[in-house]
Amino acid sequence: MQQEGAEAAFLTNPENIAYLTGYHSNPHERVLGLAIFSEHAPFLFTPGLEVEDAKASDFNYDVYGYSDTEDPFEIIAREIKARVKNPARIAIEKSHMSVDRFEQFSSKFSSASYLSIENKLQMIRLTKTPEELKILKEAALLADEAVKIGIAEIAEGVTEQDIVAKIEYEMKRRGVSGMSFETMVLTGKNGALPHGTPGGTKIKKGDLVLFDLGVVHKGYSSDTTRTVAFGEISDEQKRIYETVLKAQLAAIDQVKAGVPAKEIDLAARNIIREAGYGEYFPHRLGHGLGASVHEFPSITETNEMPLAENMVFTIEPGIYVPGVAGVRIEDDIVVTESGYDILTEFPKDLLYV
Amino acid sequence: MQQEGAEAAFLTNPENIAYLTGYHSNPHERVLGLAIFSEHAPFLFTPGLEVEDAKASDFNYDVYGYSDTEDPFEIIAREIKARVKNPARIAIEKSHMSVDRFEQFSSKFSSASYLSIENKLQMIRLTKTPEELKILKEAALLADEAVKIGIAEIAEGVTEQDIVAKIEYEMKRRGVSGMSFETMVLTGKNGALPHGTPGGTKIKKGDLVLFDLGVVHKGYSSDTTRTVAFGEISDEQKRIYETVLKAQLAAIDQVKAGVPAKEIDLAARNIIREAGYGEYFPHRLGHGLGASVHEFPSITETNEMPLAENMVFTIEPGIYVPGVAGVRIEDDIVVTESGYDILTEFPKDLLYV
Repeated sequence: MQQEGAEAAFLTNPENIAYLTGYHSNPHERVLGLAIFSEHAPFLFTPGLEVEDAKASDFNYDVYGYSDTEDPFEIIAREIKARVKNPARIAIEKSHMSVDRFEQFSSKFSSASYLSIENKLQMIRLTKTPEELKILKEAALLADEAVKIGIAEIAEGVTEQDIVAKIEYEMKRRGVSGMSFETMVLTGKNGALPHGTPGGTKIKKGDLVLFDLGVVHKGYSSDTTRTVAFGEISDEQKRIYETVLKAQLAAIDQVKAGVPAKEIDLAARNIIREAGYGEYFPHRLGHGLGASVHEFPSITETNEMPLAENMVFTIEPGIYVPGVAGVRIEDDIVVTESGYDILTEFPKDLLYV
Repeated sequence: MQQEGAEAAFLTNPENIAYLTGYHSNPHERVLGLAIFSEHAPFLFTPGLEVEDAKASDFNYDVYGYSDTEDPFEIIAREIKARVKNPARIAIEKSHMSVDRFEQFSSKFSSASYLSIENKLQMIRLTKTPEELKILKEAALLADEAVKIGIAEIAEGVTEQDIVAKIEYEMKRRGVSGMSFETMVLTGKNGALPHGTPGGTKIKKGDLVLFDLGVVHKGYSSDTTRTVAFGEISDEQKRIYETVLKAQLAAIDQVKAGVPAKEIDLAARNIIREAGYGEYFPHRLGHGLGASVHEFPSITETNEMPLAENMVFTIEPGIYVPGVAGVRIEDDIVVTESGYDILTEFPKDLLYV
C-alpha cells in the first residue's frame, strides 16, 4: 500500500479476508469487508449476525456490523474516515467488488481515486508457506481417496449422478468442509465435453469414465482428474489416453523454479499438437491452487511469469473428441528449487475397471 | 430498455441469462454474457469451451466464444458495435459486473453512459408463471423429503456433518442438480448461531436440532427450516419454539395480494418482541425465491412493496439465545389473490425424536 501511495484499502473477497485474518465467512449477498490502513490498525466489517463470531476469531482488532435495515457503506465510510479523514487513494479488489457497491462506496469519498490491490494480494498468496503446503498435501490425498471411492462405484448401469453422490457423501463424512467445485463424473459422450455436467447417463462397458474433483480442507483446495476405462476400449481411445498422459508427464518434467509458466503449457500442448489433437485441447494447461481453487499462476501458452519455489498449480491436459473420447489427467504440483513435488498420488497408467 | 432509452444491454448474471435464454451455465471466472438490443436480435457470448453447448441449446440466435488467450471484451464490443454503431446508453447488471470487468467493457465504448437493469430483471422474475410454480412446488417437496431424511438420522453421538452428508447424498441420488446453499444441520450451542457451520459436534439428548436446507431442481430453488427436539428439552426451549411457531403462523396469515411486505415481517416480529425475544431475532423475516435462492421480494420491516399474486418467498422467523436455544421455522409461500399457498408441507408442531 505504501508503494502505491494508498492510505486505506477495503477488501471484500472472503478468501482474501480469510487469508489475512483467519476469519472464514461466506456473507452471501450481504457485505463483508476488511479495512487496512498504512498507519492504523485494521478493522473487520461483517453482517450483524456475524459480529460475535468475528470477535471470537483470531482477528484481534475492531469489528463492526450492520443490520439488514442499515446502509453498510455509511458505517464503513464513517469508520474509515475516523482513521483517515480524507483518503486520497483507496485500494480495492476491482475484480471482486461489483459496480453497484463501488458506486455506493465511492459516493462516500468524493475526492478519492481507486487502485486495484488484487494482483498484490495474489502475489502475496502465490508462494506457499510450509504450513500451507502441508494442508494442500492433505487436501490432495483426500482428492485421491475420492477418486478411489468413485472408481469403486463403477458398474454397468450406475449413473454419473449416483457416483457423484457417493463421492461427496464419503468426503463429507471425512469432515471436508465442501468440494472445491461441482464434482464431475462424466462418461460416454459426456466425457468429450470438457465442462460437462453429470446427469442420469448410465455407465456401460467400453466407456471411459472421467472424474474431476477436489475438496476444501482447512480452507485450502485440491483439484484432480483421472480417466479410467470400463471394460475394453477402442484403439483410438487408448491412443488418446496415451497422448494425454505423455503430454502431462512431459509438462511436469519441465517444472522448476525459474522456468516461465508458458514453457510448461507448451511442453504438453506441443505433444498433443504433434499427435494431431491440437484442436481438441481447447483450454489452458493449469491454474494456481491454494485458498482458492483458481488462483495465480495461470499456466497458459502466453504467461511469461517465471515459476518460483513453493508455487502450487495444476497440470491438466485433455483431449476431447466428440463421439470418440474425452480424457483429462490432472495433478497438483509444487515447484521446488530443483524441480517439483506432486501432491496427488493416484496412479496414472490406464486403469481398466 | 426502450423506457430507459437503452439501445443495448449486456447481462452477465448466469441466473438471469438462464431465465431469459434457457441456457444454464456456470462460467466460473470466465466471461459469460447475453447482449440484448432494442432493435436487433440478441447474442450469447460464452467461454470457447461452451460454444457448442450453447448452440445446441434452445437459444436460437448467434453465439460467440473466446479462448483463454483472447480478450473477451474486444469480441463482445465488436459484436455489439456491429449491431449498434455507437450506443449512447447501455444497460448492465451493476450488482453482478465487477469494477474490473466494467472498466474493460466501458473502455470499448468511449461515449456511452450506463444504467442498471437489475431491478427490471428482478421485477420480470418477481411473479411466477404456472410452470415456474409447478417446479417450485416440486423443489419444496424435495426439501421436505430432505428434512425427513435428516431427522431419521438423528441419534446419540451422530455429528452434524454426518447428517449433512446423508441428506445431500440422498438428494443427489434423487437427481437434484445441487443444494441451493450449504446444508445446515446445527445442534447444541451451534443452533444459536443463525448462520452457523455444521461440524463435528455430536448430537446428545436434550438438544434441539435445526435443519436449514434447500435443493436446486430444474433451475429453481427451495429453502426450508425445521427445528426438532432430541429427547426432553427445557421449558425455556419449548417456550422459544412456541414463540417462533406462533410468529411464523401469524406472518403467513397476513399474506395476501396487496399487503405491503413489511406487514408480513412485522406480524412475526411483533410477536417475538412481545415475548421478550426481540433482540434475539436479528434478521429479516424472509426473501424471494425462484431461479435464485435469494431474490425479490425482501420481507423486511421497512419494505413497502405490496405483495402480488404469484410472488414466492420464504417466511422464516428465528430466535437465537446463546447458551439456551436456536429455533427457526421456515416455509416457502406463494401469494394468491385471496391469501397464500404453502409449498413446503413438513409438519411444524414440535417434534420429539
